[in-house]
Amino acid sequence: MTANNSRLHTLSQVPLVLETPLDVFDANEIANEDFFIRSHFDVPDINIGNWKLRSIGLDGYGVDYTYAQLMEFPKHEVTVTLECAGNSRSSVQPSCEGMLWNHGGVGRSNWSGVSVQTLLAQMGHISESTHVLFLGCDSGNEGYDSPVSNYGMSIPLSKAMDVDTILAYEMNGEVLPQAHGYPMRLIVPGWYGMASVKWVTDIRIVDKPHDGFHQSKYYVYVPPETQETQFPERVSVMKVKSLITSIKRGQRLKAGVQTIHGKAWSGAGTIQKVEISTDNGNNWQITDLAQFESQYDWQDWSYDWTTNAPGCFLISVRATDSLGNVQPKYFDWNFRGFANNGIHVVPVEIV
Amino acid sequence: MTANNSRLHTLSQVPLVLETPLDVFDANEIANEDFFIRSHFDVPDINIGNWKLRSIGLDGYGVDYTYAQLMEFPKHEVTVTLECAGNSRSSVQPSCEGMLWNHGGVGRSNWSGVSVQTLLAQMGHISESTHVLFLGCDSGNEGYDSPVSNYGMSIPLSKAMDVDTILAYEMNGEVLPQAHGYPMRLIVPGWYGMASVKWVTDIRIVDKPHDGFHQSKYYVYVPPETQETQFPERVSVMKVKSLITSIKRGQRLKAGVQTIHGKAWSGAGTIQKVEISTDNGNNWQITDLAQFESQYDWQDWSYDWTTNAPGCFLISVRATDSLGNVQPKYFDWNFRGFANNGIHVVPVEIV
Repeated sequence: MTANNSRLHTLSQVPLVLETPLDVFDANEIANEDFFIRSHFDVPDINIGNWKLRSIGLDGYGVDYTYAQLMEFPKHEVTVTLECAGNSRSSVQPSCEGMLWNHGGVGRSNWSGVSVQTLLAQMGHISESTHVLFLGCDSGNEGYDSPVSNYGMSIPLSKAMDVDTILAYEMNGEVLPQAHGYPMRLIVPGWYGMASVKWVTDIRIVDKPHDGFHQSKYYVYVPPETQETQFPERVSVMKVKSLITSIKRGQRLKAGVQTIHGKAWSGAGTIQKVEISTDNGNNWQITDLAQFESQYDWQDWSYDWTTNAPGCFLISVRATDSLGNVQPKYFDWNFRGFANNGIHVVPVEIV
Repeated sequence: MTANNSRLHTLSQVPLVLETPLDVFDANEIANEDFFIRSHFDVPDINIGNWKLRSIGLDGYGVDYTYAQLMEFPKHEVTVTLECAGNSRSSVQPSCEGMLWNHGGVGRSNWSGVSVQTLLAQMGHISESTHVLFLGCDSGNEGYDSPVSNYGMSIPLSKAMDVDTILAYEMNGEVLPQAHGYPMRLIVPGWYGMASVKWVTDIRIVDKPHDGFHQSKYYVYVPPETQETQFPERVSVMKVKSLITSIKRGQRLKAGVQTIHGKAWSGAGTIQKVEISTDNGNNWQITDLAQFESQYDWQDWSYDWTTNAPGCFLISVRATDSLGNVQPKYFDWNFRGFANNGIHVVPVEIV
């Protein structure tokens, strides 16, 4: 499923879930085989000769497209950072439900494909709708005595009409890999990865949010103690976050100048500043932020830290976005540990 | 190194570090092949024909014992719960240095061997000493530009004179397995596992604590931010702690009566009570505590929880020992995450 030279860590074989080690992010480009994978069911095996994309409007009428027909639409390209909603779950205390991602359930890639708005323009009654539903051809049962169903997510019409919301068929200039949704995956820039449905076969104009398992029961913020089974707040926009990628937990370093660097992103806006603390969060310094390149891409930050004496240190980093959102020390705990954007702390020893 | 039917999880191959899954503790007895392993260097391969135990007093004079000679001393048996000082480190936030044990770096076993006091009685000048040093024949370099040295730990003379502090040659009635210290390991009841030196070859009467790497630099409580390299407080007595072993993180349960059970222990005394909360720590109920059997063994607790409605719940458990020590919500953070006895919380779903 992945190339032999992949450096991904396996969190689960069935379904296939693989995480990127943080030091991979030290290189500016992430190879496709190093991009994290979060599947919900078996990875489907597609016969592109039979494959088609079905679009259906509110009136029940629609259009089918072959792969070749979709390639004839104008090609739109966008660089997007995608983060799994469960990323950094291993840092959640008290412990929560779900697979224990370290911090590597995130990645950035250049995606190319058809803007969803281009396809919506072919359909009638758009103005009467509120949401657009995307269904993948991956399916299964989530063990709640529920019937077998396809993975699916709806997004608001306004987000679907964003030119950068695309059905991608290329990843970093290569044909979209099978594990990443070949032949077509949705890319919803700025949202957690669960919205970027893979192996898309159906686009449906709908007048309310989808009520499928993943959208209404799974990717929702469940408060600490509850006997409700429906939750109003669904996981959507990525919260402001930053990671240290150049040093590892427990690393031993020589005294002198250390250039510490990493990444920062927010689904709600661009990154305004990234601060670093080398004394357990007591004092904060502004880091150097690389030039802004793309609205939905992460940004590089770096900081030269001078140390003279040996000792044990906690290096922390926190980002602020253009809407003024700042990373908290601890995130808002929820039962499945979604959207953990608590400050990343790396303990190091100067020897 | 371990039997094929072992259920241990590998944390490290070199040195060999293996963890016990919590559900193993549901059975009252833990098979030797399911007992956790924390090695610091390669597991030594002993030739019992050449092997001897050297004891040296403050005056420089000592006695050597063969394996057969040690077997002639009176055999002392004691049931002891040993916990690795790094156990539960994966629950430490902010993250700390060290191997990420879940909660399975703990186990209980019946140990048999020679009381250390029996050997000390053969040596002179005991009253002038303060500590007894035990050296293993496992050795290596810890990467601080230090020379190769043997693993070693000293304990206070008063603890060494406790009749239950033994050089064990049997584990649950079997010959001590190689990975657990064959032919002889120290058992220091009530102390974290690092004190129970494996593969012991030397006993030395000394007049101050050992200054070896593990004792003076590694198994010490390093505060959150420090430029010191020597720390006064060494890891020693196990803190009061309890674990839920009958349900797993994220488990889905049917509504009705759930019997929840687990273990509790303290190095500082016996367990006085174990409380459980099913509402995220807002309300606490007393659990049923099994009859007290052995001072240094863990105790079983259980609780019948009745649930009617589906929902998400946080189950927490906290123990109190006979000295009044109570588990905290969060432990005292230290750089290597030693002695994490923060309350164990297990999220479950009633469906």
